[in-house]
Amino acid sequence: AMSSINKSAHPFDKTRLDALLNRRFFYAPAFEIYGGVAGLYDYGPSGSALQANIIAEWRKHFIVEEGMLELDTTIMTPASVFETSGHVARFADWMVKDAKTGDVIRADHLVKNVLESRLVGDKEARGQVATPAKEDEKDKKKKKKATKSAAVKLEDEVVKSYETTLAQLDNFSGPELGELCRKFDVRNPDTGNEVTDPQEFNLMFASSIGPTGQHPGYLRPETAQGHFLNFSRLLEYNNGRIPFASAQIGRSFRNEISPRAGLLRVREFTMAEIEHFVDPEDKSHPRFKDMQDVVLVLLDRHVQSSGNTSTIKMSIGEAVSKGVIANQTLAYFMARIYLYLLKIGIDPDRLRFRQHMANEMAHYATDCWDAEIQTSSGWVECVGCADRAAYDLTVHSAKTGHPLVVREALKQPIVTEKEVAELDKKTLGRTFKQDAGILQKHIESLEEEALLSLKEQLSEGSTSIFINGKGFEITPDLLRIERRTFKQSIREYTPNVVEPSFGLGRILYSLLEHTYWSREQDIERGVLSLPPVVAPTKVLIVPLSSKEEFDPLVQEVSSKFRKAGVFSRVDDSNTSIGKRYARNDELGTPYGVTIDFACEYRDMFTFVRCLLVDFTAENQIFVFTLIFGDTILTLSKTALQNSTMTLRERDTMDQRIGPIDDVIATVTDLVEGSIDWAEACRRLPVYDGVQAID
Amino acid sequence: AMSSINKSAHPFDKTRLDALLNRRFFYAPAFEIYGGVAGLYDYGPSGSALQANIIAEWRKHFIVEEGMLELDTTIMTPASVFETSGHVARFADWMVKDAKTGDVIRADHLVKNVLESRLVGDKEARGQVATPAKEDEKDKKKKKKATKSAAVKLEDEVVKSYETTLAQLDNFSGPELGELCRKFDVRNPDTGNEVTDPQEFNLMFASSIGPTGQHPGYLRPETAQGHFLNFSRLLEYNNGRIPFASAQIGRSFRNEISPRAGLLRVREFTMAEIEHFVDPEDKSHPRFKDMQDVVLVLLDRHVQSSGNTSTIKMSIGEAVSKGVIANQTLAYFMARIYLYLLKIGIDPDRLRFRQHMANEMAHYATDCWDAEIQTSSGWVECVGCADRAAYDLTVHSAKTGHPLVVREALKQPIVTEKEVAELDKKTLGRTFKQDAGILQKHIESLEEEALLSLKEQLSEGSTSIFINGKGFEITPDLLRIERRTFKQSIREYTPNVVEPSFGLGRILYSLLEHTYWSREQDIERGVLSLPPVVAPTKVLIVPLSSKEEFDPLVQEVSSKFRKAGVFSRVDDSNTSIGKRYARNDELGTPYGVTIDFACEYRDMFTFVRCLLVDFTAENQIFVFTLIFGDTILTLSKTALQNSTMTLRERDTMDQRIGPIDDVIATVTDLVEGSIDWAEACRRLPVYDGVQAID
Repeated sequence: AMSSINKSAHPFDKTRLDALLNRRFFYAPAFEIYGGVAGLYDYGPSGSALQANIIAEWRKHFIVEEGMLELDTTIMTPASVFETSGHVARFADWMVKDAKTGDVIRADHLVKNVLESRLVGDKEARGQVATPAKEDEKDKKKKKKATKSAAVKLEDEVVKSYETTLAQLDNFSGPELGELCRKFDVRNPDTGNEVTDPQEFNLMFASSIGPTGQHPGYLRPETAQGHFLNFSRLLEYNNGRIPFASAQIGRSFRNEISPRAGLLRVREFTMAEIEHFVDPEDKSHPRFKDMQDVVLVLLDRHVQSSGNTSTIKMSIGEAVSKGVIANQTLAYFMARIYLYLLKIGIDPDRLRFRQHMANEMAHYATDCWDAEIQTSSGWVECVGCADRAAYDLTVHSAKTGHPLVVREALKQPIVTEKEVAELDKKTLGRTFKQDAGILQKHIESLEEEALLSLKEQLSEGSTSIFINGKGFEITPDLLRIERRTFKQSIREYTPNVVEPSFGLGRILYSLLEHTYWSREQDIERGVLSLPPVVAPTKVLIVPLSSKEEFDPLVQEVSSKFRKAGVFSRVDDSNTSIGKRYARNDELGTPYGVTIDFACEYRDMFTFVRCLLVDFTAENQIFVFTLIFGDTILTLSKTALQNSTMTLRERDTMDQRIGPIDDVIATVTDLVEGSIDWAEACRRLPVYDGVQAID
Repeated sequence: AMSSINKSAHPFDKTRLDALLNRRFFYAPAFEIYGGVAGLYDYGPSGSALQANIIAEWRKHFIVEEGMLELDTTIMTPASVFETSGHVARFADWMVKDAKTGDVIRADHLVKNVLESRLVGDKEARGQVATPAKEDEKDKKKKKKATKSAAVKLEDEVVKSYETTLAQLDNFSGPELGELCRKFDVRNPDTGNEVTDPQEFNLMFASSIGPTGQHPGYLRPETAQGHFLNFSRLLEYNNGRIPFASAQIGRSFRNEISPRAGLLRVREFTMAEIEHFVDPEDKSHPRFKDMQDVVLVLLDRHVQSSGNTSTIKMSIGEAVSKGVIANQTLAYFMARIYLYLLKIGIDPDRLRFRQHMANEMAHYATDCWDAEIQTSSGWVECVGCADRAAYDLTVHSAKTGHPLVVREALKQPIVTEKEVAELDKKTLGRTFKQDAGILQKHIESLEEEALLSLKEQLSEGSTSIFINGKGFEITPDLLRIERRTFKQSIREYTPNVVEPSFGLGRILYSLLEHTYWSREQDIERGVLSLPPVVAPTKVLIVPLSSKEEFDPLVQEVSSKFRKAGVFSRVDDSNTSIGKRYARNDELGTPYGVTIDFACEYRDMFTFVRCLLVDFTAENQIFVFTLIFGDTILTLSKTALQNSTMTLRERDTMDQRIGPIDDVIATVTDLVEGSIDWAEACRRLPVYDGVQAID
């Protein structure tokens, strides 16, 4: 039978989680010994491995399963590219300065923090339970700053107006944020001083390329432009066919005004972006039917505009048919994003899709939904899924003169008829000299209707055309107007782009919050219940004896796991087995196997205890001498091949036992997700023996 | 029997290879539609996949097999870090300017190109065969510039002096390069103008961090500092034990003065770096014995200093014992680098290890060997393997005050005895007032010998101490000198660092040159013989019919490959099978399987030809109607499970045939490297049937 576990015995405690992540070096502030730099973090061995697994699963779920074309483009980008894309003009946040100290604060964050803090104070004053203190506020408390919410009761209308403002916050422009600061008397909470009017601050890091300093460049704030600029090559690679998607995983940079503590708002981050190129006249998706029953939690823009944050549950099939989500392709990717996040371990009950409001949307987007994950810092945008329409390809094409279009052979050529003006240019030049050009231009610009009327006049002889008051007599030998048939067999168009864009650091941090808990019996014993697919290490190998002569057996188990594609680590440190398991619970290692040199033989002799008295090892062949009851036995490696190993599951701490190869096969199936722990328990008997011999 | 192939029927042609890499989008100049930026390249789908596989194999070969600790640190770095590391002062190249046009040229490249070009001209004048034109020169020719080597005969002494200069080129300082320009009258080959004296140009890209512009930062030019700054955390993660290694794969930036064409000298690149921390007093390596017989091609610094480039072959065991390579750890990593490069497909006959000369070495290194790979552009440094000693940890520790040291419990505490001065400070103060301090400082600074003599004098009563001409009378109640025993049980030291540093783009490009060839019968048919381990796609699935009803079978084969962990792609384009295979030879795809709907049944009926007359497919079950001789047969999917598939090997173009599952198993073994093609041929019979039916 499986043990029952209670993961919610203790309320979530961010301080404990942060301590664990620091202690186990998941990540740490970069340049810490130099005092650190806000918004820059380094990933240690556990964090790097977790990130690598999140990326590997992403690659499998999106690039491999959907046959996407992967790219790896440069970070350093000449300024002209971002001038065209609009980033130089518009990729900015609004900042205010403390009127006296000059300290810089991001305007929307200031309004949010101050109003939220007043609402907390109001709840306290009304004797209601206040919401848990925010991370930002905690940090500030540590720094002995003055943001502590005072227990001041507010008028009911004021509360209502704060709440409405907060629900719409992402929708306000800079000047509107300035007005809010004046209206609500929002001041710098650290000093109590007033703040200046919001100014725009461009978030791109600037540099210059080459030794002369004449070529300005920026570090990309997203990977997307690299896809768009390579569109023609990608289309050719895909045999000229559409739809297709490109995908890229890489570093991007944003010079945030006031980075928050932790991985949620940083200045350098790894992102994964997909650009799916689609026919603007047909945004259906060939695999939509496979996804249409996936139910998502949606927060649409109308609800938010009315100052509300209530969500609805709806299948994407229904959402598309009701017009809640703009088209099949956008909805298809939302469902795929949802499935990916669940696969790596995000709690579906703390995941929603929020639609951007009109003013909030990036300058290029026509519709956009963010996958938001709930953390102790509130709902965090982790994946954006935007329909960028034809914006990017159009502007780059216009700027460079390089056509970024699809040319598609029409199955049915489009046949049209229209009137065409045919000028005898030689005669025209001879007749009108320097005026010939003006006249030609005029005639060529005429619409169908004007041409028809001219045709009729010419059929009756000559006619006059007046340009700027000057008349020209036109005769049929100068101009003939005829009806012609046109056959268009190629359709040329600029594709639209649907862009799912993943902030991997935010996802990684949210995942750590969702999987962290403390054991019921001991709050100090933290566990990260990372799913095997992303856990940094899948199996911990714990040799109960650290004697060198046992190394060959440990190596053999280790090598068998490697061959099965299961990443294992040996922990041969000199601490107790309990401490080793506790450390690995904190590292999120889902399974542990114990090679117990005593129990192996015990198992072989139907669990009758025996005593190891001697062993020799040479050339990886080792011979054991055992006392078994009254008998002395000598066993060689061959006899051990069917020996046993115990298997421990992290969350339940259940232990099972079985022959080494059976345990390895079971773990392999568990890690690959083809069986669950209940099935593993059916395969392997429970182990409750004594473990240590050393 | 296997076909014989001749890969060297046609001489290597860089123009053809470049055209192939461009056509198949391995990589392309970044921002091409904006006119491009020198030294920046984007990887397309084939290049990205090749790079990802090179990285995956690197991770396996180094991080997994050696149990290294992976890191992922930031690119953006505050200036203070690079001030400490010495990069702000010294990470520079020498550049000269054209005295008239102001064009910027890297000084050492200028000298190299001009002298090499004169040597080529000399050979032509002497009627000897000139060495193949260099890539640089070709490019310049394209641009109609004036570097063409003139056939001018040189004096024998001049030739000798040019050759000596070229062999030592990496050893010259900036002023020395300036002298060479004057001595040899080196001018800008594009204009014929003289050049200015060499100036230093720092290669780091500068930026600034935060909204106030007050925090200067640089993009890292190497990942190494990120390892050093996290040393304490890494040591703790490794339970305080040494040696251990950290490893990081990531982007770095160098603002090269004059980037060369192609991937060999770029401004943004992916590198993989290992920092192996080792006891400075014991640079042996625990696994050295596994590697000691690996034979490397070595070019040591003494040979180069004497103006020579002749190499020797030597096992690393011998090289270390003879002092050619400084220590076991350095040599161990050189051997591991060698094995890695061979594994991914680098030709061992075009690989050597060149030792840095004294002036050439980075400011931090005590010994350094580059793995150089021979390409059409000469020998290219692809991996540096340096002993950085304790330089980095020492300077960062001194700057920040944060100890970056190992504290090791000594097995045998070190017991020492020495004389110790014990002052009665109270009496001392009372007696000498303001002079007490000076006196105390003086006494505490005395060496063992002086203390002994003082002790002797005090044993006879009082004595005098003179400081700056002033005498102080010291009595035994003021000062006692005693012999004490000290026991040191902790050894504290700054570890040394051995750093293998890989330029992955250079390795990738060299690999493409080493694996490229044209078919003997047709120079237009290029092949990239990439080993399966790095090939972007392992198996091409070629359905001979594009009828939709066959999709389920294609999907089944595809899914079986996925389950076996073998990355496959389906090519269902409408071109001939020959063209599809030719395309995939260019992409380096090692295997192709053909699902030939005719031959399947032919095989089932002992290769007697049959005719497909009809089929229906519903719910993935399909039914075929066949004419077999005089008989009409109906077959369902079940009957097809044992049907056959042909397997094609890229290099030999051999085709074999077998049941679908056998072919999949064979391909899996081939891709994993557990069997070779000869073994595959023993398993599967040759196929020489007719293929197409559609």
